[in-house]
Amino acid sequence: MKKSIGAKLAFSPLPTLVIGTYNVDMEPNVMTAAFGGIVSAAPPALGVSIRKATLTYENIIRSKVFTISIPSENYIKEMDYFGLVTGKNNSKFLDTGLTATKGTFVDAPYVEEFPINIECKLIKTIELGSHVQFIGEIVEVKISEEVVDEKGNSDIAKLKPISFVGNDSGYYGLGDKLGNAFSIGKNFKK
Amino acid sequence: MKKSIGAKLAFSPLPTLVIGTYNVDMEPNVMTAAFGGIVSAAPPALGVSIRKATLTYENIIRSKVFTISIPSENYIKEMDYFGLVTGKNNSKFLDTGLTATKGTFVDAPYVEEFPINIECKLIKTIELGSHVQFIGEIVEVKISEEVVDEKGNSDIAKLKPISFVGNDSGYYGLGDKLGNAFSIGKNFKK
Repeated sequence: MKKSIGAKLAFSPLPTLVIGTYNVDMEPNVMTAAFGGIVSAAPPALGVSIRKATLTYENIIRSKVFTISIPSENYIKEMDYFGLVTGKNNSKFLDTGLTATKGTFVDAPYVEEFPINIECKLIKTIELGSHVQFIGEIVEVKISEEVVDEKGNSDIAKLKPISFVGNDSGYYGLGDKLGNAFSIGKNFKK
Repeated sequence: MKKSIGAKLAFSPLPTLVIGTYNVDMEPNVMTAAFGGIVSAAPPALGVSIRKATLTYENIIRSKVFTISIPSENYIKEMDYFGLVTGKNNSKFLDTGLTATKGTFVDAPYVEEFPINIECKLIKTIELGSHVQFIGEIVEVKISEEVVDEKGNSDIAKLKPISFVGNDSGYYGLGDKLGNAFSIGKNFKK
């Protein structure tokens, strides 16, 4: 039986994404967001939604670039902190001791210690109400050598990304591999 | 040390989302997508990106509504099948034996057996290249009574959502709870 819960944001899993930008004085800033994902394969692009009150919003509007760093479980505390306070009153890199590295192709900083760093050029700004969605073309990805597999891609078992679950405000690791995509369901084919 | 892998879609975790629409003859259709997420809190809205060649694209353009059903691990095979074949040549509900239920507030079907069903009204269509992002205002959510917790929300331990990892084309379950959001990182506050 089904039960109506109204127009809620019931959606799982959500990612944990750390957006990197420079402030107007070129100090590096970061914030954590859970509203985001891949939006296009060609051009490779991702979208991330944030509120206009954030310093990150001002920075992206001005600079038209940003980075996304994906934290591993090892940095769950730092990732959480990046979403707890505003960069208007805090230097989040100084507070956590993490390293801001300038992107190779964009003028925005990423979190050196996080295993995946994605450099994005802003291609669309979508006004939605409480949030603005920034769509960034992915122009570069760097991964930590410790998480590289034999094919040169990131190994998910080493990457250990974190999911956010809104209902219980919890962070979760990735669990067991359940099956292969484009394969496990093929026996339904007539 | 960091290693450049170029402009890849390196992003984890991605969700597995089943989009429900009616065809022009009112037959129910579904397809699976991994490019999507929440994009706004007020109005509550989600975005999902698909290719124009899909039947789902035609259906959403015509009807301006769609549903998102979130599968549990129990239905991993059906979810995979929904992404393997086109509704142009297959009746995916008939092939899998799953049940298409018409939405309460939108003229689009959802997968009754999946634990979360989200009804959406199209509010924006974003052209991106290979993909079009449909942004839908969430107007209703239904959850299976078996996954409801004591507060009336969905219990993630019972919901068992599936993540997609692109690198190894794998489906993964959710793992252990690692900590509480807006809390585990608070000790960095000065």
